[in-house]
Amino acid sequence: MTDVILNTPSYDSIIRCGNGVFEKYAGCLNGRKFIVTDSNVYLIYKDLIEKVFSDSPVFVFKAGEKSKTAKTLLSVLNAMASAGLKRDCTVIAFGGGVVGDVTGLAASLYMRGVGIVQIPTTLLSQVDSSVGGKTAVDFKNVKNLIGSFYQPKEVLVDPVFLKTLSAREIRCGLGEIIKYGALNKNIFSKLCENKNSLFDSEFLSDVTADCIRHKADVVIADEHDLNGIRKTLNLGHTTGHAFELYYRGKSHGEFVLIGMYYEMLIAEKLSVGNRDYFDRLRELINKVITVPVYKDIENSAVLAKMDKKNSDGYISLIVPENVGKTKELKLRFEEYVNLLKEC
Amino acid sequence: MTDVILNTPSYDSIIRCGNGVFEKYAGCLNGRKFIVTDSNVYLIYKDLIEKVFSDSPVFVFKAGEKSKTAKTLLSVLNAMASAGLKRDCTVIAFGGGVVGDVTGLAASLYMRGVGIVQIPTTLLSQVDSSVGGKTAVDFKNVKNLIGSFYQPKEVLVDPVFLKTLSAREIRCGLGEIIKYGALNKNIFSKLCENKNSLFDSEFLSDVTADCIRHKADVVIADEHDLNGIRKTLNLGHTTGHAFELYYRGKSHGEFVLIGMYYEMLIAEKLSVGNRDYFDRLRELINKVITVPVYKDIENSAVLAKMDKKNSDGYISLIVPENVGKTKELKLRFEEYVNLLKEC
Repeated sequence: MTDVILNTPSYDSIIRCGNGVFEKYAGCLNGRKFIVTDSNVYLIYKDLIEKVFSDSPVFVFKAGEKSKTAKTLLSVLNAMASAGLKRDCTVIAFGGGVVGDVTGLAASLYMRGVGIVQIPTTLLSQVDSSVGGKTAVDFKNVKNLIGSFYQPKEVLVDPVFLKTLSAREIRCGLGEIIKYGALNKNIFSKLCENKNSLFDSEFLSDVTADCIRHKADVVIADEHDLNGIRKTLNLGHTTGHAFELYYRGKSHGEFVLIGMYYEMLIAEKLSVGNRDYFDRLRELINKVITVPVYKDIENSAVLAKMDKKNSDGYISLIVPENVGKTKELKLRFEEYVNLLKEC
Repeated sequence: MTDVILNTPSYDSIIRCGNGVFEKYAGCLNGRKFIVTDSNVYLIYKDLIEKVFSDSPVFVFKAGEKSKTAKTLLSVLNAMASAGLKRDCTVIAFGGGVVGDVTGLAASLYMRGVGIVQIPTTLLSQVDSSVGGKTAVDFKNVKNLIGSFYQPKEVLVDPVFLKTLSAREIRCGLGEIIKYGALNKNIFSKLCENKNSLFDSEFLSDVTADCIRHKADVVIADEHDLNGIRKTLNLGHTTGHAFELYYRGKSHGEFVLIGMYYEMLIAEKLSVGNRDYFDRLRELINKVITVPVYKDIENSAVLAKMDKKNSDGYISLIVPENVGKTKELKLRFEEYVNLLKEC
C-alpha cells in the first residue's frame, strides 16, 4: 500500500493505493455517509456496498456517459437533500469516471461543499479522473462545460475492483497510463520494460500509483489549471476528444491514444520531437490498440474548435517531444485541419 | 474612493467603494464581457448597461427571490454557452443579491470557473452579499442549499445606484449594517453617533465601506466557513431566516433585525450579554423598523431546524454579548422554542 498526499492551498487530500485499501479504510470513514453509484456497478457490488456501508442511503443512476448531465447532477443533489444530509456528511462516489465526476460536483455544491471520498472502480478512474479534484458534467454538447475544482478528502484506489473489468476497460485505462508515460520518464521506462505485460494486473497496480504520484505533483503546482503545468495532462486529448465526439464506439482512453498518435504525426510534420522516441511511444500504443484511419477530418476536427480549451480560431495541442518532455503547439484551425488530413 | 483587498489562498479579490467607482472602472474591465441582471434592474439601467458594455450580450431573468433556483442557474449557464464564452471571459453580475448569488454560482461552474465582477445595485448586496464569495441558489425549500465559495475578481460598490432604491430597500440594507454594528465596535460607535441620520446617503456610503472591510477580514480568516469566525456573520440570521420563510412580507435585512431582536431577548433570559448594550442596540433597531410580535412560534421555529447550519436537534444562535463581542448559543430545539415563546 502507498499513500500519495495531495495538499493544495484550498484542500487536503490523501490517495491510498494498493491491494486491500478498500477493506482497510472504507469501513472507517467518518460522518454520516451517502453512497452514489451507477446501475452497472451496483449490479456487481450491491452486497459489498450494503455490507461495508450498512445503513447509509445509496443513490443509483443509470450507467454510461449519457448520464453525465445537469439532470443527473440535480437528481443526486435532490437525493442528498431528501436524505437530510448536513455539512458533516461524507459523500462516497463508488464507480467509474462518470460517477466520480458527477458526485464530486454534487458534493462541491451541496451546502457549498461537503466531504467527498472517491472509490474508483475502473482503471481509468483509478489512474486519472478520481485524483486532482476536477469535477464536471457535460452541457450543451460540450464535454465538462459545467464543473468545479474540489479535492476529495480521500481516494481509495484498490486493484480488487479491476478483476471485474472487461479487456476494453483495461485498454481504456492503459490509454491514460501511456499518456503518463509520455509525461514522466520513470513511467516511460517502466512501460518500455514491461511492454509485453502491459495487461498484467500486478504491473497495472504498480504503475497506477506512479501515475497518481505524477498527477498529484502537477495538481499541487497548478490546481486551477492556470499556469500551464496542469495543461500538460491534456496530451492527446484535443484530437482525441474531437474524434471521440464524432466517431464514438471506443473508450475515452483509446481515443486518448488515437489522439496522441495523430498529434505525434502532426508534430513530426512540423519537425517537432524526436523520431526514435516517437517510434517507442508508437510501439506502446500499438500494444494496446490498432489505430484506425479516420477519413472525415473536416467534420470531426470542427469539434476540437468547440473544446473549451481552444479559442479565437486557434487549436492548442500538447505533444510529446522527448522522454519526459512535452511541447504546446498552437495552430490556426485551418492549419490543424490540413495537417490532420495529411496524417 | 476606498479599495478593500480580499486575498484568500484560492483567489485575489478587490472591492472598490465610493462615489464614481462604476464610471471609473466598469468600462475598463478585461476580456469578453457577459452581463447578467434582472428585469427590475434592467428596466431602470438598460441605457446605462448598453452605453458602458456596448456589444456585450446581456441576460435578463425575472426579478425576485423566487428566481433564486437551479432552473435560473441553468438558464444563465445556457445563455453563457450560447454566447460561446471561453475561459478568458468576464461575467458581470449587475443587480441585487439574487443576481449576485445566481451569477456568481454560474461563473464558478462555467468551465470550472471564469472571472466574475460584482456590481451590486442594492444597499444589502453592497454591504454584504456581493463580498466574500458565497454564491448559491435555494433548493428543495432550503435557502442557499446549493452553492460555492468563489471570490469575485472585483466588486464595484457605487452609491450612485442607491438613489433609485425604495425606503424599504434601504431598511433592508440597514438591517445588515446594524448586524455589523453588533460585530464591530467602530461601526457600532459610528451608528450610535449617527442614530438620527441612519438613512442619510453619505453616511450609508461611508459605513458600507466599514462593513465591507470588516467582512473582508472575516473572510480572509475563514473563507470556507470552517473555523467558526465566518459564522459570526450569521448573527440574527437563524431566527431571522425562520421568520422570513414563515411570515414573509418583509425584506431579508428587516428579518435579520427582527431575528437579532428576538435572539437578544433569548440571550437576556439566559443571562448572556450586557443589558445596557442591548438597550443601545435595540434603540438602533427601532430607528429602522417596528419589531412585530409573532405568535405562531411553534410552526415558524421548525424552519430553523431545517436550516443547513443546524443539526442533530440543536439550534445554533450567534448573539451579541457586548460592544464588538458575540457568543454562540447552542440550544436544544425544544428549549429554543420555549425561550422564543416567552419573548
